[in-house]
Amino acid sequence: MDNQSSSILLENAVKEFSKLPGIGKKTSLRLVLHLLRQSREDVERFGNALIDLRNGIQYCKVCRNISDSEICGICSDERRDPSLICVVESINEVISIENTQQFHGLYHVLGGVISPMDGVGPSDLAIDELLARIEAGGVKEVILALSPTMEGDTTNFYLYKKLSKYEIDISTIARGVSIGDELEYADEMTLGRSIVNRTPYKM
Amino acid sequence: MDNQSSSILLENAVKEFSKLPGIGKKTSLRLVLHLLRQSREDVERFGNALIDLRNGIQYCKVCRNISDSEICGICSDERRDPSLICVVESINEVISIENTQQFHGLYHVLGGVISPMDGVGPSDLAIDELLARIEAGGVKEVILALSPTMEGDTTNFYLYKKLSKYEIDISTIARGVSIGDELEYADEMTLGRSIVNRTPYKM
Repeated sequence: MDNQSSSILLENAVKEFSKLPGIGKKTSLRLVLHLLRQSREDVERFGNALIDLRNGIQYCKVCRNISDSEICGICSDERRDPSLICVVESINEVISIENTQQFHGLYHVLGGVISPMDGVGPSDLAIDELLARIEAGGVKEVILALSPTMEGDTTNFYLYKKLSKYEIDISTIARGVSIGDELEYADEMTLGRSIVNRTPYKM
Repeated sequence: MDNQSSSILLENAVKEFSKLPGIGKKTSLRLVLHLLRQSREDVERFGNALIDLRNGIQYCKVCRNISDSEICGICSDERRDPSLICVVESINEVISIENTQQFHGLYHVLGGVISPMDGVGPSDLAIDELLARIEAGGVKEVILALSPTMEGDTTNFYLYKKLSKYEIDISTIARGVSIGDELEYADEMTLGRSIVNRTPYKM
């Protein structure tokens, strides 16, 4: 925005928008001009939705998912199975898994994975909180749902060692060829593992 | 977002973001999660920049450009030449032309172009206001800078007829082959006009 003489208000709004990831100055200007054509009420609703989110958001005391209250809607939902805990890296994975509508247990958000390169060790993650939930009783199975990366696998291994002293099942999400993928183009690691971990054919 | 149980605040913010043009639900969620990682002050500055823009913006009484005050920064800039008025369709073109840093006169924002298909006639545009500015005296040249579309050309013609009774020069922006374009791929209309309107060669 070299157009400094026309409107400081416009300039500020464009500058703020272009701080967002993937939003350049041209897109930013387009979005701001779009908002100028909306009603005052609509723009206030938009701006306040963001401010209210940032000021009002809490982290669930049980699972560390984002929440509007002390205990999140998932942990306080009595229809969900509290004996099943799915361990994930961040809230992004909670949202992804919820969208599949295939999981009806509870979550535990670690807040990252073990990554010595980034200076993240086990003590930086919510691992003690996970163990405390299991020690409180009632948990039958923990599903490790971390990304199939070196850091994810390291964290899986660390958690497995910690969890194996409890009388619970420990599982990981299935890895294999993605649905819709051509076998020909699957990488060798994935294809190999999908043969080793083959499952009985179901009609 | 099927994840209705976790956070209404998150859901609202995502819904509001995805109302913006070109922002889908996935991008919207990504932007909202980005904002969650920013400080409260930063998010408040963002939200308030948008609200303040919408509530504070005015339209310049002279040229109808957006402005923070009754008369915009361009019209009130004494270094600019008030004898030269560039007629444009909307504030977008003001911003584009300002960014070229090649124009030092004033603007007149019509607020659209004549388009019978869309029900926009001459009376819907700020044409009387333009004529009033010329009748007030001091204007030597009006540049018609509308898009080279059928509607733009119709509006150019209408304005030309209205303006030709005054003792002023009337010009339109040059049309021709874009700088950097291969002649081979230029469309025939543009190439033809660029030959008819050839200009003396300058070293």
